Amino acid sequence: MPDLVIKDGTVVTPTRVSRMDVGIEGEKICSLAPQLSGKREIDATGLLVLPGAIDAHTHMELPVRGSQSSDDFLSGTIAAACGGVTTIGDFSVGALETSIPEQIEARLKTATKAAIDYTLHGEVIGWRPGRESEFAEAIDLGVHTFKFYMTYSRSGRMSDDGVLYHAFAALARCGGHAMVHAENDAIISALTDAFEAKGKLDIDYLPRSRPAICEAEAITRAAIIAQHTRAPLHIAHVSSELGLKAVLAARAAGGRITAETCPQYLLLDETAYAKPDGHLYAATPPLRSQTDCQALWEGLSTAAIDLVATDHCPFTHDQKRWTGSFLDLPYGLPGVETLLPLLYSEGVARHRISLEQAVGLLSSGPAKALGIYPRKGAIAVGSDGDFVLIDPASEWTISANKLHMATDFNPYEGRKAVGCPVMTFSRGRVVFDGERFCGEEGWGRYIPQAS
Amino acid sequence: MPDLVIKDGTVVTPTRVSRMDVGIEGEKICSLAPQLSGKREIDATGLLVLPGAIDAHTHMELPVRGSQSSDDFLSGTIAAACGGVTTIGDFSVGALETSIPEQIEARLKTATKAAIDYTLHGEVIGWRPGRESEFAEAIDLGVHTFKFYMTYSRSGRMSDDGVLYHAFAALARCGGHAMVHAENDAIISALTDAFEAKGKLDIDYLPRSRPAICEAEAITRAAIIAQHTRAPLHIAHVSSELGLKAVLAARAAGGRITAETCPQYLLLDETAYAKPDGHLYAATPPLRSQTDCQALWEGLSTAAIDLVATDHCPFTHDQKRWTGSFLDLPYGLPGVETLLPLLYSEGVARHRISLEQAVGLLSSGPAKALGIYPRKGAIAVGSDGDFVLIDPASEWTISANKLHMATDFNPYEGRKAVGCPVMTFSRGRVVFDGERFCGEEGWGRYIPQAS
Amino acid sequence: MPDLVIKDGTVVTPTRVSRMDVGIEGEKICSLAPQLSGKREIDATGLLVLPGAIDAHTHMELPVRGSQSSDDFLSGTIAAACGGVTTIGDFSVGALETSIPEQIEARLKTATKAAIDYTLHGEVIGWRPGRESEFAEAIDLGVHTFKFYMTYSRSGRMSDDGVLYHAFAALARCGGHAMVHAENDAIISALTDAFEAKGKLDIDYLPRSRPAICEAEAITRAAIIAQHTRAPLHIAHVSSELGLKAVLAARAAGGRITAETCPQYLLLDETAYAKPDGHLYAATPPLRSQTDCQALWEGLSTAAIDLVATDHCPFTHDQKRWTGSFLDLPYGLPGVETLLPLLYSEGVARHRISLEQAVGLLSSGPAKALGIYPRKGAIAVGSDGDFVLIDPASEWTISANKLHMATDFNPYEGRKAVGCPVMTFSRGRVVFDGERFCGEEGWGRYIPQAS
Amino acid sequence: MPDLVIKDGTVVTPTRVSRMDVGIEGEKICSLAPQLSGKREIDATGLLVLPGAIDAHTHMELPVRGSQSSDDFLSGTIAAACGGVTTIGDFSVGALETSIPEQIEARLKTATKAAIDYTLHGEVIGWRPGRESEFAEAIDLGVHTFKFYMTYSRSGRMSDDGVLYHAFAALARCGGHAMVHAENDAIISALTDAFEAKGKLDIDYLPRSRPAICEAEAITRAAIIAQHTRAPLHIAHVSSELGLKAVLAARAAGGRITAETCPQYLLLDETAYAKPDGHLYAATPPLRSQTDCQALWEGLSTAAIDLVATDHCPFTHDQKRWTGSFLDLPYGLPGVETLLPLLYSEGVARHRISLEQAVGLLSSGPAKALGIYPRKGAIAVGSDGDFVLIDPASEWTISANKLHMATDFNPYEGRKAVGCPVMTFSRGRVVFDGERFCGEEGWGRYIPQAS
Repeated sequence: MPDLVIKDGTVVTPTRVSRMDVGIEGEKICSLAPQLSGKREIDATGLLVLPGAIDAHTHMELPVRGSQSSDDFLSGTIAAACGGVTTIGDFSVGALETSIPEQIEARLKTATKAAIDYTLHGEVIGWRPGRESEFAEAIDLGVHTFKFYMTYSRSGRMSDDGVLYHAFAALARCGGHAMVHAENDAIISALTDAFEAKGKLDIDYLPRSRPAICEAEAITRAAIIAQHTRAPLHIAHVSSELGLKAVLAARAAGGRITAETCPQYLLLDETAYAKPDGHLYAATPPLRSQTDCQALWEGLSTAAIDLVATDHCPFTHDQKRWTGSFLDLPYGLPGVETLLPLLYSEGVARHRISLEQAVGLLSSGPAKALGIYPRKGAIAVGSDGDFVLIDPASEWTISANKLHMATDFNPYEGRKAVGCPVMTFSRGRVVFDGERFCGEEGWGRYIPQAS
Repeated sequence: MPDLVIKDGTVVTPTRVSRMDVGIEGEKICSLAPQLSGKREIDATGLLVLPGAIDAHTHMELPVRGSQSSDDFLSGTIAAACGGVTTIGDFSVGALETSIPEQIEARLKTATKAAIDYTLHGEVIGWRPGRESEFAEAIDLGVHTFKFYMTYSRSGRMSDDGVLYHAFAALARCGGHAMVHAENDAIISALTDAFEAKGKLDIDYLPRSRPAICEAEAITRAAIIAQHTRAPLHIAHVSSELGLKAVLAARAAGGRITAETCPQYLLLDETAYAKPDGHLYAATPPLRSQTDCQALWEGLSTAAIDLVATDHCPFTHDQKRWTGSFLDLPYGLPGVETLLPLLYSEGVARHRISLEQAVGLLSSGPAKALGIYPRKGAIAVGSDGDFVLIDPASEWTISANKLHMATDFNPYEGRKAVGCPVMTFSRGRVVFDGERFCGEEGWGRYIPQAS
Repeated sequence: MPDLVIKDGTVVTPTRVSRMDVGIEGEKICSLAPQLSGKREIDATGLLVLPGAIDAHTHMELPVRGSQSSDDFLSGTIAAACGGVTTIGDFSVGALETSIPEQIEARLKTATKAAIDYTLHGEVIGWRPGRESEFAEAIDLGVHTFKFYMTYSRSGRMSDDGVLYHAFAALARCGGHAMVHAENDAIISALTDAFEAKGKLDIDYLPRSRPAICEAEAITRAAIIAQHTRAPLHIAHVSSELGLKAVLAARAAGGRITAETCPQYLLLDETAYAKPDGHLYAATPPLRSQTDCQALWEGLSTAAIDLVATDHCPFTHDQKRWTGSFLDLPYGLPGVETLLPLLYSEGVARHRISLEQAVGLLSSGPAKALGIYPRKGAIAVGSDGDFVLIDPASEWTISANKLHMATDFNPYEGRKAVGCPVMTFSRGRVVFDGERFCGEEGWGRYIPQAS
Repeated sequence: MPDLVIKDGTVVTPTRVSRMDVGIEGEKICSLAPQLSGKREIDATGLLVLPGAIDAHTHMELPVRGSQSSDDFLSGTIAAACGGVTTIGDFSVGALETSIPEQIEARLKTATKAAIDYTLHGEVIGWRPGRESEFAEAIDLGVHTFKFYMTYSRSGRMSDDGVLYHAFAALARCGGHAMVHAENDAIISALTDAFEAKGKLDIDYLPRSRPAICEAEAITRAAIIAQHTRAPLHIAHVSSELGLKAVLAARAAGGRITAETCPQYLLLDETAYAKPDGHLYAATPPLRSQTDCQALWEGLSTAAIDLVATDHCPFTHDQKRWTGSFLDLPYGLPGVETLLPLLYSEGVARHRISLEQAVGLLSSGPAKALGIYPRKGAIAVGSDGDFVLIDPASEWTISANKLHMATDFNPYEGRKAVGCPVMTFSRGRVVFDGERFCGEEGWGRYIPQAS
């Protein structure tokens, strides 16, 4: 008899949406069947039972400009759990001086306080002899995807095309995956310098200094290098119609490319920068136009985009205090807790995407991209007991002060939503009960990726 | 406690290939879990547990030239069961004089003797006022896909483009799907007439009278009409590289198109027509070149092709007796019993496709195309108990006299194969035990399609 | 000293638009130079000197439904001369019973009365043994392009795909070119039959019975057959955006295809059918939408379309008398006399195309397509003395009663135009002096095509 | 009566290849006609009369690494004249410190000694405030095309994407054209650094450090930026199949792009680097494979490539003395004198391209790209008297010591050729008589470009 049975919910498995019971034994789903009995039973009548969402792109306690993003691995994963997210994909913190395996080891120590499971991408900052062999070691540590910044030369985090060329070839050899933040650095620098020279530093110059063509060109370039070196490529946070078209063109040319977008690029647009508190929306890539939002929703419904993640990187009002120049701001927005609610409310409930598509974008898609499917990302026998109960009839209003992310700012403040998470399970354990976090610091485990 | 548990097999579910128990209650899969106990247990150690194959394209007891294909619904479905096929998609027998719903009703009566489950496509022969409204009635009877012959003007079975135009538009309106046998009739007729006039009627003039360009052109044309009328389109038995390229081009232009190929186009080629008994290989489309075979295998491995079916239409040596003209032959080959063994042996065991791909092409792919997924085509809780146990270590030699199809001819005679089916289950019941058919006449049920 | 010198005009040669003198010796242009002296001199100050237009698609005295088009070779070529056209491409009159060379010989006899030069295409009606060898004979007679109707099954003029397949292959072998009237016959027949059955025979059912998809599909099909058989293909009278896209797609796939459109598809649209005298606009393909017009103008300016011809096939009010059914009408519009004036006035003067592009579309383009360049279609030394003087400052109003075509109907009646032809030369001789025709019956010569 | 008449040659005009006389009055072609009489007459019986070739890409007396290319404007243009080239397109010498108009003025002074006509492109080295407005001034000076190096960061000549973005936008605004040396600098630098670190500096590491993907990627990037900024773009010296495909893809995406290749990429391949004197073949882009050569010939015959130029940049054996590292070599090959002979001998005489295509690639094509057509590039009335007589029956052997270029090295040494230039005319004057240069220092004039 299973330890726990979720009874009579509408379960979204990879094959169907149907009423069914889900049995959990220990940390795993052990049985899918009707009329199961368990030592403990939870009635899910009227509720949706979805695999827990996987936020494949978060930045917890990320060092930025002398400060760090306001969520640490504990607060951030508590927020995640309260939002129905059961796994996050965070990043090692790259640096020129140390090796990537060292960086991973260090980051894994920092992450031990996490309340839900996590996986790591390797951030590659600074190229040096030996980096190539570090990839193989990192893969042994369970890190398969390595992120390269094609911009941020100002802060020294950029990888130029020579690095991409060497690194992608090395990744192809050892079975790794490349991931890029795709923006053309030289154009951004030229525009930024020009604006700076004229003192044009208001927040609305942030998007003007990073037009969508920068994204599209960089995606094309990364895809050419990846195809030539035979490395699989993931495009982080596609933000524009031009960018999405570049992804599609690269795939049509034979590239092996996955693409991600984020709720902020689907639901917010550049008019935010015209608000009195517009500087709080500073992010890179910047918010775009409504036309771009529409194109990205279209990309979700046509499977052009493989997954939705958040690029969660929260800052407080205080951290984002306006000093008169968009160049001084830390870039990033909170998101991990609102990922599933927003995609459900704005996507499924408004019929832009189906429930099955939402599960693909939030669970099976990212799990496959992270190489952890079907351990994660599916309600299936043998999979981890990570799932979330959603009440489709419930309504709520998004507000920073009701959410658990460690920031007093929320870009969706005041937005009405339907479909609250009412219970979240991590490896078979309830970690959110609809009211409060009821998991435990350090419950989260590191999940190694596989290719 | 389930009625039956298949223990310790390597189970291919939609999410994973793993050792697991499968519980069956009545006719359905009721549980997927390790260490299940059942009233009856079958040890599948060392065996693969696959969803039963679905042969989406068969012609049992099909009237052809005063005779009929040599398998009736009983012998053909017994053979199917012995080959690991648990559902067939057969066709109503079209005629100008009667309505499609009548034809369906008549065919359903004929099919009641079937030993495994079956679904029906509607064959459309002869256009007449009222055909359009017949579609909606047929859909109510569970027939969603309607087949049109773009050739066979000689025997009066052809639908011209005007019929396709009206019919596809009508299908789009009522939610039906179009399926075509795509060959350009006028070119075939012109070539055939020219050969006939010169007395060139040897069997090798069959392929010469139906070059691959006929297939490619007809696919393109059907796709243009389907896209314009917004009807989904299925291309039956793609046989050539040119044809497959036409499918890909039509999809790239935005068409909603699925494609099927058959084992004979993957494994046999036109050199068969040079054999002393070459006339026995008469089929339309004809066998092509090795280059075409390679292109089709490539199509399987890249997901360009959605499913493999057989176009099972057996005749005996006697029925295919050579009279001196390829025009007098009944066209068609046996196949339902060798579908799964050949795709396993030549595809999976030779590493042309993965095991998961094989299951996609033989089970989930056709089930989705037929609109019966996941009731059929998946090992999942709630799905019908249709599955087959395969012994990957076994070897055998294909021979007509060991097979159950009602014909003394087999085009793969003498070919070595690995991976025999050792047990087949239909709706939870054993219908093949590795030695003999042990199901029952009339056990098969009609499975209505859904869109 | 040349016989004639045209002095100080703005001459459009293949390399430049510049002021220059043109010397004519006998029937040929003998010199291009400044300050030439001639036995006779004509002052062209302020005038444009263009190569004479070539109307590659006319139907003089064409037998249609017991009557014939209202211009014979004399009246039609007089009108041509008055409109600045110095060569026409007409067609032999095909028939099943006779050979194409016989048909050409017969047509050449009919054409001897022509006032300007002419070339012939071979019309292919009715396929029969021996047609293939007729092509080679016809080519010896100077006919290189053969026209096939993909529609008109009702009147027995259609060639089915089998004919196209055999014929295109034969043309490829002997160096001929294929030309098609591209409309899908079966769809048109089906729609027509359906409208006819419901008594929907008003003129606005003409366009509804021949939607643009019919054109696009037929172009695609002809292009596939042409590419497979390696025959060059000319698409007559492209009338729609869909059709033009099909041309472009076929070219992108490697097809060797030229395309023609007509003034009526650039300047008139389907709203004409809503006029009280809408039936007078009956033509096939039918007039389309404004969107189609725009797409075709775009096609001219981007060189997607190779030439503009008229499909000149005039009928009188009386011949087009309305009997209550669009099926009873002779189809066709007058055009040869307004070809150059309309393209100049609506194209060049309105800056939709440049003067050089106009000359390309009206002179060098058709001359190349007909295989008579640079004897025709260019102001160049050695070329025939075929040219026209245009006064760009002049204005006039189009009206049937001022024009020379033998019809009392003109589809552009009342339209203002700029840029009248003020003098036309045929092989060095003035045939239109700005007021009246001043050539001679029988002056026109047959110009054999070369490949 | 013209000053000079070339009698009875086979003249290649834009419309035809035919026997005709060409009259020259002063510096211009004044008449094209048969049987002209002139004050002076030259019998061209049996000879081809072609427009003089235009070498749109030369580097005379170019400062390189403390030395300069071995031809100055006099020796180089004498060699040009002896090879049938009548106009060259050279470059101003860019520098950060001075303005482009100043650079043009300076270069024009250097060029005054030229023996044939010349036009200038503007080389852009070093971006600085004000460069944009320099473009408009330069255009007033007759320089319309501006060249940017996407590589050569080592020598400080590279423009990064930010420069391209600003500069292309500025050019689009003022009607200028962009030209790029397209190679990805960062990849080249990374490979070069890696080879250098390992001491791999033999000449065969030159091509390995600049693989074709670098060219293809850079073409794609330049095309994206050009399309976004709406600037027309010229790709200099396309050297590889990948590069040519990138050109075609960019055009298919709507880009306005012209492409150039050079004889060395058509006729030489990377096996040259394996020769004992392989270092003498050092050039950038480097020589590629035979497959690339074939693809480029195919590009000529299908009009994918617009013009052939030489990138003439000669050095002597002494200047190219091998020091042990490919990084120390001056890059460049001689070519201006062999351009026409090689394209005639290897292209026309071997039937890879037609005579008309050769004239398009060598004369009308580059003249149009330079904006000097039809003043240059055509045998037409009003055009400059620039032409060359070729004897198709003559044979010769290429050898540095017989050629006039100021270098003792020729990459085609010993190659047999047919079709010697036997007389070259520059603006009506004989500058090469088949034996020796017979023009004059300073005869060449600056030809301003027009857009």
